[in-house]
Amino acid sequence: MNELKLTEVKKHYGNKSVLDGVTVQLQPNTIYGLLGRNGAGKSTLLNIVTNRIPATAGSVTMNDRDVTNNDEALQQMYLMSEANLYNPRLRVNEIFKETARMYGGFNFGLASRLAHEFGLNVNARNGKLSTGYRSIYKLIVALCVPADYIFLDEPTLGLDANHRDLFYRTLMDTYAERPRTFVIATHLIEEIAHIIERLVIIKTGSVLVDSSVEETLAQSHVILGPQAEVAAYTAGLNVIGEESLGQLKVRYVYGALDDKILPDTVRIDGMDLQKLFIELTNEEGDEHVI
Amino acid sequence: MNELKLTEVKKHYGNKSVLDGVTVQLQPNTIYGLLGRNGAGKSTLLNIVTNRIPATAGSVTMNDRDVTNNDEALQQMYLMSEANLYNPRLRVNEIFKETARMYGGFNFGLASRLAHEFGLNVNARNGKLSTGYRSIYKLIVALCVPADYIFLDEPTLGLDANHRDLFYRTLMDTYAERPRTFVIATHLIEEIAHIIERLVIIKTGSVLVDSSVEETLAQSHVILGPQAEVAAYTAGLNVIGEESLGQLKVRYVYGALDDKILPDTVRIDGMDLQKLFIELTNEEGDEHVI
Repeated sequence: MNELKLTEVKKHYGNKSVLDGVTVQLQPNTIYGLLGRNGAGKSTLLNIVTNRIPATAGSVTMNDRDVTNNDEALQQMYLMSEANLYNPRLRVNEIFKETARMYGGFNFGLASRLAHEFGLNVNARNGKLSTGYRSIYKLIVALCVPADYIFLDEPTLGLDANHRDLFYRTLMDTYAERPRTFVIATHLIEEIAHIIERLVIIKTGSVLVDSSVEETLAQSHVILGPQAEVAAYTAGLNVIGEESLGQLKVRYVYGALDDKILPDTVRIDGMDLQKLFIELTNEEGDEHVI
Repeated sequence: MNELKLTEVKKHYGNKSVLDGVTVQLQPNTIYGLLGRNGAGKSTLLNIVTNRIPATAGSVTMNDRDVTNNDEALQQMYLMSEANLYNPRLRVNEIFKETARMYGGFNFGLASRLAHEFGLNVNARNGKLSTGYRSIYKLIVALCVPADYIFLDEPTLGLDANHRDLFYRTLMDTYAERPRTFVIATHLIEEIAHIIERLVIIKTGSVLVDSSVEETLAQSHVILGPQAEVAAYTAGLNVIGEESLGQLKVRYVYGALDDKILPDTVRIDGMDLQKLFIELTNEEGDEHVI
């Protein structure tokens, strides 16, 4: 299998640092969630990995060879993003053909079935499609291209709940039939929580979390109870956020819980992925009082 | 309280019918979810109610007076939508002032606090803002304007999870302090499920559901078990969708369950709002096989 590796990738625009040394090894045949706040550098990272823009420093390698000017490596990667790379006058089925030519293959049967299921007119011109249908034809291309690494930057932009549901189902189906690596960058975290296996969280240009979803959730705790007891129980733990509700306090803890004795009045629950993300990436000092 | 009523509202564009007779009475001091697929007519409806576009037939009245050319009524309504109505050269704080002038009031204190919490620069020019921050300043305007009916069309477009979370919290806070009616049109159904009290679902230009969230969920059932038993139990019920998983079948039922005897092998669960919406509004005949 092709191994894709990012080493100390940096990107500066003048004085502004967007990526500040990102090192990640992407595992083959794995579905990733790439999470980060607006402006955290997710899109920049995806554009660098797929060689659309140059890094300021660091390297991206496939099987230990730099991907820059490396056609073999670039053919194993496809990036679906908001950028409209195809001529607006091209029809959807012409885009399918052009992709087949560029990538040396394309699953036309699947593309045709998906176009039907999504209600996409393959004779429509690219430039005439709504935001939703522009996302849809790009998703279809991403699912039908024979690359080992598929990067999806906000794949469900403009899609209604039915089409998002259909997309997630289709992604899982095509993944089961032909495993490859998907990297999904999205703000709709709860919707992909049950699909992704691994998680990369970027915060202000650096990797904050690179772990399996299972391990991450096992480390994520909600501690609820009376103010004083919760404060005592969580003292010394990695508290990433808290909320107050009258006499009750909720503290969010990321990491191991020590073997302290839990008072009867304090409860420990799991945390969902979106809540964990919010607490991990909120700016300092925004305690919420409900 | 001001009563807002839509009666048999229709909208045609040439031969194309977008709204096909919508009758809804909006209750005062209530948070609504307005749901529908892409193209169902939600935005058209909001634009007609707030008098931005004319209806082909039917009426919108406030306290039994038509809202057309009715400044008193229009001052009680504010629509936040993707349309950019303000001059791109205006600064955010100038937009706040202009809104105050038009609506005869504005909560400048709250606006200033929210701008700080969202990290919005109030000296930035409208036309220079990102999609996310354009949504944010419009949300702030919507929460600070002294109108009785606030319509929000895809309010969280371009917002990351943290900002969506902050918006939902702020909405609930300002609603508790000064109750009024919010109508939220969005595709992110699960995210507003715990906020909204009533639900209006539009399907191809007509009202499919107009009910409280509580009643709607009480009518929504997931029936799971062996194929034959599930088929027998749900015969005669309002089955809105089904899925198969090997020998197991899931059927989604909307409406009363009869007093049939439930076999031990069959389980009944509740359905979440997004799943209900998807099953109610999917096109005919798209049975999903997992």
